[in-house]
Amino acid sequence: MASRFISRRNLDFILYEVLDISALSQYPFFQDHNRESMALVMDTAVTISEKMMYPVFQEMDKKAPEFKEGRVVVHPAVARFMTAMGEGGWINALLPYESGGQQLPYVLFTAATYVFAAANYSLSVYPFLTAGAAHLIETFGGDELKEAFLPNMYAGKWQGTMALTEPDAGSSLTDVSTLAVPADDGSYRLRGQKIFISCGEYDSIENVVHLLLARIKGAPPGVKGISLFVVPNRRAGEDGKLVWNDVTCAGIYHKLGYRGAPITQLSLGDNDDCRGWLVGEPHRGLRCMFQMMNEARIDVGLGAAAIATAAYYASLEYARERPQGRRIDEKNPETPQIPIINHADVKRMLLYQKAVTEGALALILSLARWVDLIRVTEGEEKERYELLLDLLTPIAKTYPSETGIWSVSQGLQCLGGYGYCDEFPLEQYYRDIRIHPIHEGTTGIQGMDLLGRKVVMKNGKAFALFLEDAGAAIADAKKSERLAPRAEELERALDVLQKVTARLAGIALEGKIELFLADATLYLEMFGIIAVAWQWLVQAGVAAAALGKKPSEADSLFYDGKLFAFRFFFEYELPKIEGLTKRLMNADGLTVDMKPEHFED
Amino acid sequence: MASRFISRRNLDFILYEVLDISALSQYPFFQDHNRESMALVMDTAVTISEKMMYPVFQEMDKKAPEFKEGRVVVHPAVARFMTAMGEGGWINALLPYESGGQQLPYVLFTAATYVFAAANYSLSVYPFLTAGAAHLIETFGGDELKEAFLPNMYAGKWQGTMALTEPDAGSSLTDVSTLAVPADDGSYRLRGQKIFISCGEYDSIENVVHLLLARIKGAPPGVKGISLFVVPNRRAGEDGKLVWNDVTCAGIYHKLGYRGAPITQLSLGDNDDCRGWLVGEPHRGLRCMFQMMNEARIDVGLGAAAIATAAYYASLEYARERPQGRRIDEKNPETPQIPIINHADVKRMLLYQKAVTEGALALILSLARWVDLIRVTEGEEKERYELLLDLLTPIAKTYPSETGIWSVSQGLQCLGGYGYCDEFPLEQYYRDIRIHPIHEGTTGIQGMDLLGRKVVMKNGKAFALFLEDAGAAIADAKKSERLAPRAEELERALDVLQKVTARLAGIALEGKIELFLADATLYLEMFGIIAVAWQWLVQAGVAAAALGKKPSEADSLFYDGKLFAFRFFFEYELPKIEGLTKRLMNADGLTVDMKPEHFED
Repeated sequence: MASRFISRRNLDFILYEVLDISALSQYPFFQDHNRESMALVMDTAVTISEKMMYPVFQEMDKKAPEFKEGRVVVHPAVARFMTAMGEGGWINALLPYESGGQQLPYVLFTAATYVFAAANYSLSVYPFLTAGAAHLIETFGGDELKEAFLPNMYAGKWQGTMALTEPDAGSSLTDVSTLAVPADDGSYRLRGQKIFISCGEYDSIENVVHLLLARIKGAPPGVKGISLFVVPNRRAGEDGKLVWNDVTCAGIYHKLGYRGAPITQLSLGDNDDCRGWLVGEPHRGLRCMFQMMNEARIDVGLGAAAIATAAYYASLEYARERPQGRRIDEKNPETPQIPIINHADVKRMLLYQKAVTEGALALILSLARWVDLIRVTEGEEKERYELLLDLLTPIAKTYPSETGIWSVSQGLQCLGGYGYCDEFPLEQYYRDIRIHPIHEGTTGIQGMDLLGRKVVMKNGKAFALFLEDAGAAIADAKKSERLAPRAEELERALDVLQKVTARLAGIALEGKIELFLADATLYLEMFGIIAVAWQWLVQAGVAAAALGKKPSEADSLFYDGKLFAFRFFFEYELPKIEGLTKRLMNADGLTVDMKPEHFED
Repeated sequence: MASRFISRRNLDFILYEVLDISALSQYPFFQDHNRESMALVMDTAVTISEKMMYPVFQEMDKKAPEFKEGRVVVHPAVARFMTAMGEGGWINALLPYESGGQQLPYVLFTAATYVFAAANYSLSVYPFLTAGAAHLIETFGGDELKEAFLPNMYAGKWQGTMALTEPDAGSSLTDVSTLAVPADDGSYRLRGQKIFISCGEYDSIENVVHLLLARIKGAPPGVKGISLFVVPNRRAGEDGKLVWNDVTCAGIYHKLGYRGAPITQLSLGDNDDCRGWLVGEPHRGLRCMFQMMNEARIDVGLGAAAIATAAYYASLEYARERPQGRRIDEKNPETPQIPIINHADVKRMLLYQKAVTEGALALILSLARWVDLIRVTEGEEKERYELLLDLLTPIAKTYPSETGIWSVSQGLQCLGGYGYCDEFPLEQYYRDIRIHPIHEGTTGIQGMDLLGRKVVMKNGKAFALFLEDAGAAIADAKKSERLAPRAEELERALDVLQKVTARLAGIALEGKIELFLADATLYLEMFGIIAVAWQWLVQAGVAAAALGKKPSEADSLFYDGKLFAFRFFFEYELPKIEGLTKRLMNADGLTVDMKPEHFED
C-alpha cells in the first residue's frame, strides 16, 4: 500500500487560496463556519479515511460481496462505517440546524467526500447514496414520510438507494415499466424489476430504502407518466416492528471493479405485497429524481477524480523509490541506477496525472461552491450560479471519468509489470474507475445533455455566462507577464469553442437534430479540456501571486509544481482541441450515414 | 459468449486482396504454397480456435494458475493445446523442409496467430513462446544444443521461454546480474533471479527451456557483457532421464488479466547445480536475444489487435441485439425501442474499434510479409525490407497496444453496465489487453527505440524508405477522384512528420539528447497514426477498385464498410496529429526541467 492517497496541501490550496471558501461565512446560513472549524471537519474526514477506510480498500475488493440464500453478505467494515457516518452527523450534515443538520457548506462536504472516495471508493458510496436518497425525501416528501424514514437514514441505520434502471430501461428512462397501483390506505402496490441497484440489499443493515421510479396505473406513456416512490425492503408492521415488504434480491452482479459495493437485481411485488409511497406529485417523478441525479453526477466525477488521485500518489511513490536505468548521457554501466522519477517520460506520465486530477478537482469544487451560493443568494445572482452549475454538470461528471481512466492507466504504466499485479494497488484503481463513464448516465448521454440541452437552453445564456467567467480569468491573467501568453491561448480556445458551437447550432436550426448531436461526445471532450484549462489558469494566477510573496521553501516547491502542471496542461492537453475542432467543424454526418449492415463483413 | 471473435472475410481481404500473399509462391522457397493451401491453413487455425481455445477463454481466466507446494497448476486445456500444436506442426511451421518444417510464409503464420490470440490470448502464448525460443536455438545454437532441445520443443512437449527480467533489471537490461560460471564439461553453472517469466514453470509439461540472459564471470559491465544461455528446468541425467536442474519456481504473480498464463519468479542455482549452455558467442547475448525480442514485439502488437478484434465483435453483436431508446426525432414513447447500433454515438464507438483494429492488423501483416521477403530476396531489396521492418516494429508493437486499450474500452462502453460485468466478455478483454503496452518493452522504451535509434539509423535511410512507400500509395490514390482528397491529407501529414522529425533531429545534433527524446512517446503516437492512415489509404484503394467491378451485395456492403472505416480514420483519428505536432514542435523541455521535488506538495 502507498503511504497516502490525497494531498491535503492541494485541497487547502483549492479550498482556501483559490476558492476562498472561508468567505462563505459572510452569509448568515454559513456564519458559524470559519477556516478553523472547516479545518477540523477536514481533519476528521482524513482521520476516518486513514483509520476505517484505506486499510480495508484492497480487502473489500478481494472479499467482494457474496449472494447467499437470498442475502447479500458484505464486508464487516460496511456496518462499522455506516454507524460512524451516522453518529458523526455526516449523512445529514448539509441540513439546516432545525432539521438536525450542521448547515455545512456543500463545497466542504464535497472535499470530505473526495477524501473518503480516494481512500476507498466502494465504501464511500454507502452513506452518500443514503444522503442523496434522504435529500429527495427531505425536498419532495410529506411529513409522514420524513418521520418514517429520515431519522434511521440519517443515523446510518438504514441504507438509501436510487432505483431507476430496469431490464428494458437503462439509458432510456422513458421505458420504465414498474407498475404502481393505488391502494386504499394511501400507499401503492408496486410490481416490477429493478437492476444495477447499488447497495440495494445487504445483511448488515436494518433496512434499505429505495427512491424508485415507477408508473402509476393508467399514467400516460413516456417520461410524463413516471412517478417517484419510496419503497423500503422492510416496512413497519402492525406492531411497529419491521416486516418484509415483498422486495426480493434476485442476485448481484460480478463486476470488473468497484467490488466493495454490491450491485443488486431486485424483484418487487412477486407476492403482490410490495408497498410504496408517492414522493412529490404524480407523473413528475423524473423531475424530482433529477435533483438526486445531478448531485450524483457530480459525485461520480468526484469519485473518479478521487480514485485517479490515489493512483497518482501510489505511482509517484513508486517512481521515487524504484531505481531503474541511468541518465541518458550516462554511459558508464557501473554507476548506480537512478529512481525512475528522473526520466523525462516518467515525469510526463506523472504530470499528466497531476494535471488532470488537480484540474478536475478544482472544477468540481468550483461547482460545489456554486451549490452553496445558490442556497444563500437570490434573483439574478442565484440564477447565474444555477445556470453555470447546470451547464457544467455533464463536464464535471465526464471529464474526470474519461481522463481518470487514462490517468490511472498512466499511473499503472509507471510501475511497469508491477502495475499489472495485485501487489500494488494500481490494477484495482484501474478496475474501479472504469465504472465512472457508465453509471449515472453514460458519456454519450452526458454529451447529448451538454450540447442538446445545456448549451442551447435559454438562448445560450448559461454558455454566455461561462464565457464571461472564463473571460474574467483571462483578463486577470493578462496582467501578469508570465501568464499572459497562456491567457491568450485560452482566449483563442474559447473563440474556437464558440465557432464550433455556432456551427453545430446552425445544424440544429436546420432541423438536422441527429447530425447536430452525432459528435456530441467529442464536443463534450473539447469543452471539458477548455473548462479545465480555465481552472488551471485560475490556479496558476494564485500560485504565481503566492510565489511573489517569498513563501517558505516547501511552499515555493508546491507553487512551482502548480506552475509546471499548468504549463503541462497548456502544452500537452489543450492542443488536443485542434484535432477535435477539425472534426467537429466538418460534421459530415459519417456516423449518421453509415448503416448497421456496413458493419457486416 | 459472443458468437465470433474474428472476421475471416477481413483477413482474406488483407491477405489476398491487399497484400496479395499468394504471389509469394513465385519464390522457390514458398513455391508449394498457393491460395488453396493457404486457405486450408487458415481453416485449420479457425477450427482449432473455435474448438479448443474460445470455449475455455473465460474459464481459464476464472480458474487462473495456482502456485501449490512449489508447482504451478494450470488449466488442463494447456496440455491438450500444446500437444495439438506440436502434432499439427505449428511450432516449427516456419522452418525449411530439411529441418522438419513446412516453409510456411510468416505472414500466414502471423494471420493464424492472430486468430488464436483473438480466441484466447493466454492460451495462444504457450506454443508461440516456445516457437520463439526454439527459433533462437535454431539460429545461434550448435548442433548438440539443437538435438538436445528442439525435437521436444517442436513436439509441444517442452515449453520455451524468454528469460530476461530480473528484480533490478526490467527496462534496464544493462543491469542483468545473473551469473554464469564456466564448468569443466563445457556447460556453465548459473546463479540468479529471474522475474516476470511467462510460462516459466507449470505442471502439465515435461520440461521448460529458458533462453536466458546472464553474465559470464569476469565479463565486462553493461550490455557488452551479457550472454545468452539455454537453461532448462530439468536436464538429462546420466541415464538420459530428466533430473531437476536447480531452477526453483518461487511463486507466480496475481495479475489484472492475461490470467490463463502463469508469470513466474525463478531462482537459479540455489544449490549450485543449475546448468546452462551458451548460445552464440560470449558477451553477444543481447544481440541474439533481440532477434527473438523483435519477433515478440510484433507478436505483442498482434495479440493486442487480436484481443481488440474479439472485443469489437462482441460489442457489435450486443449493439445489434440490444434495444434501447428511439431515433432522435421519434417523440412517441409507444413505438418500440430500436437496437442501439442505430444511434450515431454507438456507431462512432463501433467505427473506432473497426478502424483501429483493422488498420493495425493491416500494418502488422504488412510487416510480416516483409519478413518473408527478407527471407527470399537479396542485396538492396532485402535491405529495404529489413530497414522498413526495423523502423516500424516499435509502431507495430505500440499502436495496437495503446489504441487497443481504448478500443476495448469503447467496446465495453457500448454494453453500458453489462460491459462492466463478467456475464459478458468485455471486462476480461479490458483486463487482458492492459499488459500489452508493458511487456516486451514498455511504450516509453518503444518511443526511444523509434526516435532515438530507428528513425536516425543509417542517416535516416529507413525513414526515407517509409516516406517512399507511403508516397507511392498516395500517388496511386490520387488517380482516384474519390480518394484524392484523402491522399492529399496523408501527404500533408507526411510533410508535418518530416518537419517534426527534422526539428527533433536538430535538437539531437545540438547534443541535447535528453530533450531530443523527452517526448519520444508522443512522436511514436503521431507516427503510429500516420502509418495506420497509410494502411487505410491502401485498403481504401483496393475496396474502391473492387466496388467498381460490381461485386455481390454482401461484398458491396463489405467494401462500403471499409470505405466508411477509412473515412472515419481520416476524420476522427488523423486529426489527432494536429495537437501532437503543436507539442512536438514546441519541445520546450518542460519534463526535462521539472525536478522530482516539484511533485511534492
